[in-house]
Amino acid sequence: MDKKFLVFGGDLRQINVANMLAEYGCAVNACGFGDTPELSAEVEYFDCWRDALGGVSAVVLPLPCSTDHETVNMPLSAEKILIADLFQAMNKNQIILAGKVTEKVRQLALMYNIYIADYFEREELTVLNAVPTVEGAVQLAMEETPVTLRGSKCLVLGYGRIGKLLSKTLYALGADVTASARKLSDLAWIKIQGFTAAQTSEIAEVIPACDIIFNTIPCIVLDESALARVRPDALIIDLASKPGGVNFDAAARLGIKVIWALSLPGKVAPITAGRIITDTLVNLAEELGV
Amino acid sequence: MDKKFLVFGGDLRQINVANMLAEYGCAVNACGFGDTPELSAEVEYFDCWRDALGGVSAVVLPLPCSTDHETVNMPLSAEKILIADLFQAMNKNQIILAGKVTEKVRQLALMYNIYIADYFEREELTVLNAVPTVEGAVQLAMEETPVTLRGSKCLVLGYGRIGKLLSKTLYALGADVTASARKLSDLAWIKIQGFTAAQTSEIAEVIPACDIIFNTIPCIVLDESALARVRPDALIIDLASKPGGVNFDAAARLGIKVIWALSLPGKVAPITAGRIITDTLVNLAEELGV
Amino acid sequence: MDKKFLVFGGDLRQINVANMLAEYGCAVNACGFGDTPELSAEVEYFDCWRDALGGVSAVVLPLPCSTDHETVNMPLSAEKILIADLFQAMNKNQIILAGKVTEKVRQLALMYNIYIADYFEREELTVLNAVPTVEGAVQLAMEETPVTLRGSKCLVLGYGRIGKLLSKTLYALGADVTASARKLSDLAWIKIQGFTAAQTSEIAEVIPACDIIFNTIPCIVLDESALARVRPDALIIDLASKPGGVNFDAAARLGIKVIWALSLPGKVAPITAGRIITDTLVNLAEELGV
Amino acid sequence: MDKKFLVFGGDLRQINVANMLAEYGCAVNACGFGDTPELSAEVEYFDCWRDALGGVSAVVLPLPCSTDHETVNMPLSAEKILIADLFQAMNKNQIILAGKVTEKVRQLALMYNIYIADYFEREELTVLNAVPTVEGAVQLAMEETPVTLRGSKCLVLGYGRIGKLLSKTLYALGADVTASARKLSDLAWIKIQGFTAAQTSEIAEVIPACDIIFNTIPCIVLDESALARVRPDALIIDLASKPGGVNFDAAARLGIKVIWALSLPGKVAPITAGRIITDTLVNLAEELGV
Repeated sequence: MDKKFLVFGGDLRQINVANMLAEYGCAVNACGFGDTPELSAEVEYFDCWRDALGGVSAVVLPLPCSTDHETVNMPLSAEKILIADLFQAMNKNQIILAGKVTEKVRQLALMYNIYIADYFEREELTVLNAVPTVEGAVQLAMEETPVTLRGSKCLVLGYGRIGKLLSKTLYALGADVTASARKLSDLAWIKIQGFTAAQTSEIAEVIPACDIIFNTIPCIVLDESALARVRPDALIIDLASKPGGVNFDAAARLGIKVIWALSLPGKVAPITAGRIITDTLVNLAEELGV
Repeated sequence: MDKKFLVFGGDLRQINVANMLAEYGCAVNACGFGDTPELSAEVEYFDCWRDALGGVSAVVLPLPCSTDHETVNMPLSAEKILIADLFQAMNKNQIILAGKVTEKVRQLALMYNIYIADYFEREELTVLNAVPTVEGAVQLAMEETPVTLRGSKCLVLGYGRIGKLLSKTLYALGADVTASARKLSDLAWIKIQGFTAAQTSEIAEVIPACDIIFNTIPCIVLDESALARVRPDALIIDLASKPGGVNFDAAARLGIKVIWALSLPGKVAPITAGRIITDTLVNLAEELGV
Repeated sequence: MDKKFLVFGGDLRQINVANMLAEYGCAVNACGFGDTPELSAEVEYFDCWRDALGGVSAVVLPLPCSTDHETVNMPLSAEKILIADLFQAMNKNQIILAGKVTEKVRQLALMYNIYIADYFEREELTVLNAVPTVEGAVQLAMEETPVTLRGSKCLVLGYGRIGKLLSKTLYALGADVTASARKLSDLAWIKIQGFTAAQTSEIAEVIPACDIIFNTIPCIVLDESALARVRPDALIIDLASKPGGVNFDAAARLGIKVIWALSLPGKVAPITAGRIITDTLVNLAEELGV
Repeated sequence: MDKKFLVFGGDLRQINVANMLAEYGCAVNACGFGDTPELSAEVEYFDCWRDALGGVSAVVLPLPCSTDHETVNMPLSAEKILIADLFQAMNKNQIILAGKVTEKVRQLALMYNIYIADYFEREELTVLNAVPTVEGAVQLAMEETPVTLRGSKCLVLGYGRIGKLLSKTLYALGADVTASARKLSDLAWIKIQGFTAAQTSEIAEVIPACDIIFNTIPCIVLDESALARVRPDALIIDLASKPGGVNFDAAARLGIKVIWALSLPGKVAPITAGRIITDTLVNLAEELGV
């Protein structure tokens, strides 16, 4: 590709994104990583973000692009840069590629007439992110239990992207896997894969036999009555985004060990996570004809 | 279940359905299988279909329920029974569960005010039927090639239900699997599974390396120009329903071996196919409160 | 390799061997395939075997090299050639690579002072041959049962090369696999793989639940008392070489379906079988410094 | 079983052994775990080991049974008990089951005419211990690399028990696995499993492409010249017992990250490790007719 990108702010993952875009042959400017970021020689680093904008066709904001709806998310730099200022400085042919764009940032883009695309909403990114999420969940399960996964009884709540890959991975490791779903067609798939299928409405009966319970459903499925059936030596790993799937207060009261594991990709595999973002940016840029 | 079913006409698969429903504890009448069908002792067989209707809550017609839109599909019997006569003889509390209901049969049901449900449209049946379909395809590939699947290069066109399970199965057998899809998210899934991913638009480049090409897409993807790139010793197995995915005339002209494999479940695994239908009927009956 | 081979007699597999050796860059003479064998252009075909010997460093005899201990196994040719004549005509620097060398042929070689190596005894060939053997067994099981392998109960008797790969393959296809062995360490491996382990002495208790029984042990493990416990609709596939592992008379009396499947590689995958022989010949020639 | 065991000293694993033997219905005495070990109600705890000997048929010493060749390994207790005193106090019908029996301890047993069996030498234990060892290695690889195992290039040196299960597990997790071996038959197996095979003599050529290198061979295979080819961002996990398979000094000099991971079962999965010991003890006791 002969595009020129400006990679702007963020954490180590974003530095990986800059380096990988350069590795793919793109021209890359970078700014907002503080004093001495570990950028490859092909990336041109700028102290002044206004200078960095020169000649680029797309500005890549980090994941998430902002934590306060107003400034660019730049944890490695002491500087604060207003998103509004950035948008104002951009010309009409430059676009924004950003992660987890909030409504307020989207409004700003509209106001300044800047095209903004959220790469975190791309389905290929969501699918590929299931890989580090699942490996992170497996790593946690290995670290936090005194038994091997091979031979242990695992329950996976929810059969979406994460539930599918997690069930498959645990099964490949030799665990005895039960997966829950609501639709008959999902339950049929679960059986075909060799897992035990459980109706979501019937998980209470399955719970007492489980060594590890993984939740992927973002609503309270493990409420007080379900938690009361969890074995005292069992482990719960909740992978669901807010509000999570566990009544954490009840779990604490009952003395059940729960780990709420969020944002695993960036934590357990920052290089892989950076690669996934980079590949998605390349797809996006191609589709948008940047 | 305490329902009473009448299992009516069809081939060996339908006899299996009658026996399995009885095995599940349902009361079962049967008719339309000719003189001495191999029914279990729990199934009551009737020579006269009008007598067989007595006391039943659901009438199970075979798959397909009719081959001429007018009479019940009864290949094992010399008798011809008009669907219209059957519908007329039924009372208001009796329903029809039938496979592959055509528009004309549906109109008849409407006319006679009979509730009719098509079990072939149930998603759990479609999912589970992927199992015998895929095993049939694997069996064909084993029979028709002088090489082992382990180590052979297989291309799977289409990544729906059949494409997914087929890719997974070939991979488990040690084949080198490329799967094609159009959506980036499907291509991402394909890569995660360990298969090679090919954009549907790029399969022409992949074809020359393939030993076996499986098609699951019901439109002509293997047209004359694609076929021209198929190796002379390669095998094409087309699993797509009419019109199939291969230009059969062109393939014949080019001397390429193509097998159009339709209705595999009933052919390669009639007992499993019967079990799948039976389980679906039980689900249906439960949901309908029969 | 810059060796020159004479590929001498045999069936289609041996023709594949000649072609594949040429494909690997070896110089190849051939004879004994009748009038118009389908040899590639790189192979030089001779009508007179004495002419074909000129300049070759190794003579490759087929698998098996002889069926009567006296003449070369040449099913595609009307000619009869005495092994003794061949050995006499060879010079001291030429060696024989042959399959299934019998004691009598070995004595002949000794008498004529010809070095003879049996490629069928090479362990890498035996290991690799497990692949077509297992695929052949799976194909038979698919063809001869009205159920899918996925979900069927399979018993694998013996946990040697074939038993290991067969168990793994059936498991990968979704079968419910029990494997039998005698040693505790083998039983431990079986459990680790996710199969059910059965002591060889306890298989009688396992048998009644099985849909398909595969035997790999070359002595009568399925005797009359064991066969009496086999379900009438079950299938037995015996992969053991003579005398086999089944009391065939008793099985016939009891009406149990048994398939004694010998020499599967050449039957179900002649190209793969030829490739395995060729690769073994290349290893052998290299080690012998031919 | 109606045996009575004395479980004597050791760490948490040994406490698990005592509890699991009781769970299996054996009578169990215990001593040497300090003041308040977490023993189940079925286990009788003794402060005085001489009292604990009463009526038992076998004394179970921990793994390892001694760290100084003279006293029982009792890390949870302040007491020191001479093995010689124990042997002298035992009667002729009592036997010792111990882990990692050194030559000196074996001599003591001979002197006091005590039968001693080393459960750590049992092949089923060694096989089953491969499971927690491999999971521990996978956990380490996940923790210590910024990439996912799926898609990473892994080299497994050695194709014994650990090498086999580790290769299979990494492959199941989606890694790109190369396994090394010396014997052609092992290399054939490696290919059949879908891994890449590398001759042990050729690993230097494979090393530069690897993200993670696992060694299972207990002699220096990764010497200075091999280490010089390791990528700077690669990770080496050495699973080989002393002296290990890595020139650790050279690795340190070259700045390569090496983890020498010994005794993983007790560390990463003490409950599973205890279960494996217990099952082996039960097998042993049965065979010895205790």
